[in-house]
Amino acid sequence: MKRWKRIDELSSWPTLLSRKAAPLSSALTPERIGERVIAAGGGLDYSYAAMDADDDTVSLLAGAAAELDLLGQYEAVATGELMNPGEGRMVLHHIARGTPCGPVVKDGRDYRAFYEAERLRAAEFARGVRSGATLGSTGKRFERVVQIGIGGSDLGPRALYLALERWARERGLLGLEASFISNVDPDDANGVLSGLDPETSLFVLVSKSGTTQETLANEALVKAWLASSGKVDPSRHLVAVTSETSPLARNPAYLDSFYIDDFIGGRYSATSAVGGVVLSVALGPETFEAMLGGAAEADRLALEPDLRRNAAMMDAMLGIFERDVLGRPGVAVLPYSQALSRFPAHLQQLDMESNGKRVDRAGRPVAIPSGPAVFGEPGTNGQHSFYQLLHQGTDVVPIQFIGFRKNQSGFDPAFEGSTARRKLNANLAAQIVAFAVGKDDADPNKRFPGGRPSSLLVGDELDPRALGALLAHYENKVMFQGFAWNLNSFDQEGVQLGKKLTAAALAAGGPSDPALAAYVRLLGAL
Amino acid sequence: MKRWKRIDELSSWPTLLSRKAAPLSSALTPERIGERVIAAGGGLDYSYAAMDADDDTVSLLAGAAAELDLLGQYEAVATGELMNPGEGRMVLHHIARGTPCGPVVKDGRDYRAFYEAERLRAAEFARGVRSGATLGSTGKRFERVVQIGIGGSDLGPRALYLALERWARERGLLGLEASFISNVDPDDANGVLSGLDPETSLFVLVSKSGTTQETLANEALVKAWLASSGKVDPSRHLVAVTSETSPLARNPAYLDSFYIDDFIGGRYSATSAVGGVVLSVALGPETFEAMLGGAAEADRLALEPDLRRNAAMMDAMLGIFERDVLGRPGVAVLPYSQALSRFPAHLQQLDMESNGKRVDRAGRPVAIPSGPAVFGEPGTNGQHSFYQLLHQGTDVVPIQFIGFRKNQSGFDPAFEGSTARRKLNANLAAQIVAFAVGKDDADPNKRFPGGRPSSLLVGDELDPRALGALLAHYENKVMFQGFAWNLNSFDQEGVQLGKKLTAAALAAGGPSDPALAAYVRLLGAL
Repeated sequence: MKRWKRIDELSSWPTLLSRKAAPLSSALTPERIGERVIAAGGGLDYSYAAMDADDDTVSLLAGAAAELDLLGQYEAVATGELMNPGEGRMVLHHIARGTPCGPVVKDGRDYRAFYEAERLRAAEFARGVRSGATLGSTGKRFERVVQIGIGGSDLGPRALYLALERWARERGLLGLEASFISNVDPDDANGVLSGLDPETSLFVLVSKSGTTQETLANEALVKAWLASSGKVDPSRHLVAVTSETSPLARNPAYLDSFYIDDFIGGRYSATSAVGGVVLSVALGPETFEAMLGGAAEADRLALEPDLRRNAAMMDAMLGIFERDVLGRPGVAVLPYSQALSRFPAHLQQLDMESNGKRVDRAGRPVAIPSGPAVFGEPGTNGQHSFYQLLHQGTDVVPIQFIGFRKNQSGFDPAFEGSTARRKLNANLAAQIVAFAVGKDDADPNKRFPGGRPSSLLVGDELDPRALGALLAHYENKVMFQGFAWNLNSFDQEGVQLGKKLTAAALAAGGPSDPALAAYVRLLGAL
Repeated sequence: MKRWKRIDELSSWPTLLSRKAAPLSSALTPERIGERVIAAGGGLDYSYAAMDADDDTVSLLAGAAAELDLLGQYEAVATGELMNPGEGRMVLHHIARGTPCGPVVKDGRDYRAFYEAERLRAAEFARGVRSGATLGSTGKRFERVVQIGIGGSDLGPRALYLALERWARERGLLGLEASFISNVDPDDANGVLSGLDPETSLFVLVSKSGTTQETLANEALVKAWLASSGKVDPSRHLVAVTSETSPLARNPAYLDSFYIDDFIGGRYSATSAVGGVVLSVALGPETFEAMLGGAAEADRLALEPDLRRNAAMMDAMLGIFERDVLGRPGVAVLPYSQALSRFPAHLQQLDMESNGKRVDRAGRPVAIPSGPAVFGEPGTNGQHSFYQLLHQGTDVVPIQFIGFRKNQSGFDPAFEGSTARRKLNANLAAQIVAFAVGKDDADPNKRFPGGRPSSLLVGDELDPRALGALLAHYENKVMFQGFAWNLNSFDQEGVQLGKKLTAAALAAGGPSDPALAAYVRLLGAL
């Protein structure tokens, strides 16, 4: 792998570091709001008029992005270079939905063809389940599909399912309702199972390695539950999504198996079979395909060399300005769409697991703060919760708003002169302006300092294409930020120590480490 | 109101400010783990062995807590002084569940008697619904209860319901399943309603003022949906929880009304009728009463003058040490209990809305950072998501773990030598030690710095009593922190500007402010 620079090693870094937050109260003109918009794919626009980087700062960021060769690094990813250096792997999630820089063929395998073939197999499987051609072992139609997986096998697929559940229902496309089991806490699985009938339930077991502790424990619990019905054959109610070399592959314990590989990391896997099987079964294969189309569109737009025309790269560089120049430690993701209720939890993993690192790709300690803490809830709910701190707290938290011009559901009677949809977006517009401009008051407790930056991703409607673009926008943003920090955004060594100590805690006779033993006793886990 | 000091005005502040994070790798002995435990009520223990404050720092914090008269301020709250100065109100949420410092009687009203009478009325109403004595307008039994409310009328009650849903189901106490509608996005209400039958649905409308925009819009949508069935009389399917002076009070549009008052703020209202009606209907009045008992226990323990024996106060002061001395901007709340999946969202409001302030009670700008950003997800899910950043990121994020020795559900077959419950707590013990101690490695990318502090609230089982104590522990912690920062933790002026600009955005002819008008157009909200 080529040696790339870290942003703080650029000759322009001291100049960039001296930039200040630009005042927003006078800058937020209709002209600027009209100009600072970049197409992000899937009908989405990225608006950064209310960000506190002025044009000089944006020019400096554009220069840094070029000098860091962010685009060349993305092309290296998309053409199959080993851009996950610690694990010596390619990074191919873009290929799951397209060929942004042409096909990737290595050792005789065409990866686009492989992923596409798996998608088509999942589509065919989904059609069988949805049509009733594939039945449960007692001859009944499947009515519910349950994904068993954790981390990237849970958060992304769950967020996407919830995002389109109502959209699909309104269009008669919701074939099976989906549920998700992730936590090793047995209260999770038992809570989901208590609403289900074994005869009509289909389970999708997702583990790339086939060795994930939580997922296998939940599989065992689900199999015991299926078997305890005394009616169903568990092997005809479970399918596996795994790698071809895992113990779950081509295993008669499963009705079918769908394949992924080590070149798509968990948090980037929603557009592979990890998301594809459950979403195709629940929402229809055409819905999933349209989502991939939106993602591919965003991937193509992220190849634009001009920062001012590249939404994901602009979002990335403005985020680095907030984090490293202005010193802001967190980011709030606030979708004005109830359907995106779990999208912030997906972004939390995507961003914090990718860029929450302290060592760069050359093994040196990073010299400036890397990935921020990410949190969020849907608006308007958050307005009645933590927005108080966002408006008047001592830290400035940059905001990522998401909004849509139409809602998914048809029923929206007007009340007091406006629909709920219009109220929702009036609230969103009001918040952007309130955060940016603030308000003076004779009572210091009622003063709003303003100068609180936000960006907005806005589209017509949260449909599969827009959702795919939204997902890919953030994947590409996080990837570009990792490049700028010269991090490996595609490994997660920070999760390993906990796994080792858990194994020690579960060892026969208890753990030998005295502190661990004391906590195991305190928690009654002997 | 008496003038209290701010922690940075104490003579001991410079000494406190010079304290460093104490190394944890050698400090975490079984002796310390055994000693650093404080009873928190409801059978919970607060363990702070893995916090990076050494005994000298704790002594300084104890001195500061005494000098700030944190206890005297709590007593002032509990005896009905006007401790919400900006709004000139008493702060009586403790009184909703007990009399920690005796009854509060003002202007002829005994507030404990008032709240208790409302609780008993809600209990009687709940018994009628649960027994089938109170039926829907077409003579059918109510099968689902839906709370319509936002902010404190949603997050707390929802988190508590989810926390006890399985507990109640396993014991045959789950009378009606509960759902929640909060967002003004009509996709929220439509999503909930699509699973319901108007004839068997009971709605609890919660708005203290009776004027909350989102809640009234959702009420209108629900009433239209009920009416469109052509079968039911909406006024016999809705009850109101509101103040006695609101337009919703004693209104024939509702089957019944239950009362709260201005002395219990939204985010502190889960133990009032705001939580009481829906929880009593869904989980049983005895369950709700037991929860109040646990909360009252925690409230009594928070009266302990010795910091080392007062869990809520210790948690508060250690949090201030992390925030203001060690400069840590965020807090992660990580419950190892799937039933607490939405408890972090409740704490986000409780903490960030209470202490996300920049002006103290004397109207002066605060000189040190106040309330932190709070986020969290249940473990073990978070381990496969954002823990990477917690272990190896550039910022240290102090952690609040929560765990229980038993799970709520009975079905937990062993797999690979241990139950899922044991695996869950082995993971929790392992994480505490991994964060505190870390691990060296020749590969810098596999190094764990350690020194990442965490506390643990641990109990036997998440039952109503433990849950009540958990809720009150955090309420009291946040209250003590507000006292130390000399903030008014009981108002939320930071939400007002957004409301005003929303009204402007919805004005006939569109808003006059050009920036607001531009965003309204961009969002199609004209």
